[in-house]
Amino acid sequence: MAAEQDPEERAAARPLLTDLYQVTMALGYWRAGRARDPAEFELFFRHCPFGGAFALAAGLRDCVRFLRTFRLRDADVQFLASVLPPDTDPAFFEHLRALDCSGVTVRALPEGSLAFPGVPLLQVSGPLLVVQLLETPLLCLVGYASLISTNAARLRLIAGPEKRLLEMGLRRAQGPDGGLTASTYSYLGGFDGSSNVLAGQLRGVPVAGTLAHSFVTAFSGTEVPPDPMLAPAAGQGPRVDLAACVEVWLERVCAYMGLGVQEPHPGERAAFVAYALAFPRAFQGLLDTYSVRRSGLPNFLAVALALGELGYHAVGVRLDSGDLLQQAQEIRGLFRTTAAQFQVPWLESIPIAVSNNIDEGELARLAQKGSEVNVIGIGTSVVTCPGQPSLGCVYKLVSVGGQPRMKLTEDPEKQTLPGSKAAFRLLGSDGSPLLDVLQLAEEPPPQAGQDLKVWPRGAQEPCIVRPAHVQSLLRLWVQQGQLCEPLPPLAESRALAQLSLSQLGPTRRRLEQPELYQVALSEKLQALVERLKAPGPQ
Amino acid sequence: MAAEQDPEERAAARPLLTDLYQVTMALGYWRAGRARDPAEFELFFRHCPFGGAFALAAGLRDCVRFLRTFRLRDADVQFLASVLPPDTDPAFFEHLRALDCSGVTVRALPEGSLAFPGVPLLQVSGPLLVVQLLETPLLCLVGYASLISTNAARLRLIAGPEKRLLEMGLRRAQGPDGGLTASTYSYLGGFDGSSNVLAGQLRGVPVAGTLAHSFVTAFSGTEVPPDPMLAPAAGQGPRVDLAACVEVWLERVCAYMGLGVQEPHPGERAAFVAYALAFPRAFQGLLDTYSVRRSGLPNFLAVALALGELGYHAVGVRLDSGDLLQQAQEIRGLFRTTAAQFQVPWLESIPIAVSNNIDEGELARLAQKGSEVNVIGIGTSVVTCPGQPSLGCVYKLVSVGGQPRMKLTEDPEKQTLPGSKAAFRLLGSDGSPLLDVLQLAEEPPPQAGQDLKVWPRGAQEPCIVRPAHVQSLLRLWVQQGQLCEPLPPLAESRALAQLSLSQLGPTRRRLEQPELYQVALSEKLQALVERLKAPGPQ
Repeated sequence: MAAEQDPEERAAARPLLTDLYQVTMALGYWRAGRARDPAEFELFFRHCPFGGAFALAAGLRDCVRFLRTFRLRDADVQFLASVLPPDTDPAFFEHLRALDCSGVTVRALPEGSLAFPGVPLLQVSGPLLVVQLLETPLLCLVGYASLISTNAARLRLIAGPEKRLLEMGLRRAQGPDGGLTASTYSYLGGFDGSSNVLAGQLRGVPVAGTLAHSFVTAFSGTEVPPDPMLAPAAGQGPRVDLAACVEVWLERVCAYMGLGVQEPHPGERAAFVAYALAFPRAFQGLLDTYSVRRSGLPNFLAVALALGELGYHAVGVRLDSGDLLQQAQEIRGLFRTTAAQFQVPWLESIPIAVSNNIDEGELARLAQKGSEVNVIGIGTSVVTCPGQPSLGCVYKLVSVGGQPRMKLTEDPEKQTLPGSKAAFRLLGSDGSPLLDVLQLAEEPPPQAGQDLKVWPRGAQEPCIVRPAHVQSLLRLWVQQGQLCEPLPPLAESRALAQLSLSQLGPTRRRLEQPELYQVALSEKLQALVERLKAPGPQ
Repeated sequence: MAAEQDPEERAAARPLLTDLYQVTMALGYWRAGRARDPAEFELFFRHCPFGGAFALAAGLRDCVRFLRTFRLRDADVQFLASVLPPDTDPAFFEHLRALDCSGVTVRALPEGSLAFPGVPLLQVSGPLLVVQLLETPLLCLVGYASLISTNAARLRLIAGPEKRLLEMGLRRAQGPDGGLTASTYSYLGGFDGSSNVLAGQLRGVPVAGTLAHSFVTAFSGTEVPPDPMLAPAAGQGPRVDLAACVEVWLERVCAYMGLGVQEPHPGERAAFVAYALAFPRAFQGLLDTYSVRRSGLPNFLAVALALGELGYHAVGVRLDSGDLLQQAQEIRGLFRTTAAQFQVPWLESIPIAVSNNIDEGELARLAQKGSEVNVIGIGTSVVTCPGQPSLGCVYKLVSVGGQPRMKLTEDPEKQTLPGSKAAFRLLGSDGSPLLDVLQLAEEPPPQAGQDLKVWPRGAQEPCIVRPAHVQSLLRLWVQQGQLCEPLPPLAESRALAQLSLSQLGPTRRRLEQPELYQVALSEKLQALVERLKAPGPQ
């Protein structure tokens, strides 16, 4: 796997990828002399996606990349000047020109952590003007990354640990970076790899891919390869004319399958031979361009058996239409009898890969006990998250000038939790999470083995909980613009996601009608909320 | 509006934003001596999205930008070498290094045209290896752009021509470029503008935005603005202390509304004053941070009336929660009576802007007759297209070496139409489209006023049609890598979309259970399909 190495100048987001109101508010703050007031925002979601009881935190690596390169170029400032009032004080634009994130501090859940409603994915503090400007890009970077990781984790839970899951949805993604984000974070969420080459190059995601129908239809069978000769796998012995050898095997295979030798499409066979000449050690057959049983299978077997004579073992077959489960069973059966017939045991276990609009329901069918499917390619359903295409994250001001802030509003759903906070996960003796607690930053952390009185969100009464272990959730990643520790490699975050999910417990992990996980407030935070909700100016 | 000026080095896609199988197939073609065989692919969709009967073609400008800058860098080729077999002939990598789109020709539907199933959005011809490599990025660029344009057009049809529709979904978009694509193409589809600053800078989309709840909650009311003085709008006369003037108006407004003068939140009022000082000519009040009636409205009116004394007219109010339609009616009523009470007629017609998870259903409610809502901001529902988050475009080989190609497969849905084709729209005497005809490129075009026998797709029998006008659909944009004519400005494509939709006719334009629009094959194309479907090698 290549190292993660996105050249910094290609950070996915840039400062003007923001809502105009961030800029108008920036001018408002500046005009009010408040641009540098210390402020803190929290980024969180209000409901777990897809009707589940968990989400995975992700997107931090993109946020850090964005913050480290955050600078308005001259052209950016000029554009802003063109949309702001013509009599705007030029000193404001000087302020913008000098802006960077050297005053910004970020605490966050590590990527791959379990995340729950109201618990900050990110806490962002720094000068009011700049942390306000960051709102939209951070929401954009965290929301989709967390959504796609969660979606991928659900699909992995359905598929079980054995099936190989490949993300191949770039063509269906909502925009190019959407595709890159999807490939990166579906891997984090539990997929094994992606078809997306850029995700391999920039993010170190394992990439996979062989051939499409267009390759098969590009051959008619009359083409003459410039060099049909192939050397044996071991490197010893004379080179062999692969195409000729395939024709010999075709007769034997057709006789065994009860097919006429003219039935399998010669163009498909020529395409398989061309592919096998280029990838003798990684030959895969795409079976359904013409007819799986009467063309794809005999052609594949002829090529695979010819390669086998030279010591090469085909790596798989792929199906992209029809009843995938049923066909996989039939194909496995044919592979078994053919392996016995021609005494080539390696043929029995050739991986069967499938794709074609696979969603959660179809995946469950393909992953059922006894299924002969080995590799499952998923596109649209993983990258576009059709069950819920947005996580709906928000970014809310919780304190300014050291004073807690709260949006009250008449819609209780939209009320926010005030104050600079810490977040803890209380764990049982088996390491499974019991509930998350939000408290004011100045409070002492909960103690393992001690009773704690907390207010579950939405409850009228407090409850007592005694954790066996206590985990601090928000880690300091960026302090005053400086990265405090390197972000873990993507594969490490992926492992954390799988570990976290395994500890969650089956009733909360299940995908439909799960037991909800509680988030609670400390007594002091609850009291602050009540105080700020009381009528009258604060 | 700024000129469209995406610096070319920031093309949204790059060559490695592709599926690995495009690269493995490239090696397969190269090894078979077929890299330079002339080939043609068609990009199309199979079903209109969202249960409607039309789609809009879009994304061409991004495709052209991508093609013109298509070049594999050394680092790209090195990465590919790391994922291909170690014994791959180095000459293949030399071939990749020299690759560009100078041999590629693109015909396409102009952006903003109506598009129907099976009619190519793009025809891409050129050397087999390179046009194969282009598949994934072109699908990614066209699919989402066309989907979002179509979604925006539907929302515009629901809203009617009068309401101002603003796209503000960047924070909910699936990745950063997803956000930029969404803002660009929702404008093309009929929105009036976007909150996305980058879409303004790079694509010339009109941008809009004022203030969010965080701005309001950032003020407590104890802050002292460094300069509370504001000059009259006309520039004549002494500067006035706006904050002081607002306090005077607050008493009058509260007395009129029957509220205690201490009820409106002082922090909200301070925020409004700060914003008004920065934007005296563009003051908008966000009303629902605390309580619309008891705080937001009196504070807004106090500031608006104080500004009014200086000759400035507030530009609007915004609501982001609760029953938006009901509140708009009440607010309009209050504006009317307050305008009469204080003899400020301009107050009556201040635009009311609303937002908050508005979908097609809620939009219909907000756009009903008598609604006092003027501006509607839509985020998630426009950018993520929750009704159908992917258009499902495909890119299929139709000819190679001058020979037609067809994917037969056992799934009739997935069969393709062979051969290099032309496409025509047959129009009635009123200019409304009757049906689209696909025919072989070498056939003479249909003639206006003459009977034409065609085979509607899926029909068992041909039919006769006599068009009053005939429109050639596919335009030559890129010939051998050279742009043939400049792409129209985005606003022109937007106008084409509205014109095209207006000509479609109400039964096909309606959003639910519409009359389907037919696409038909010429007799010759139909005959070719039948010939290629016949069993046996071609």
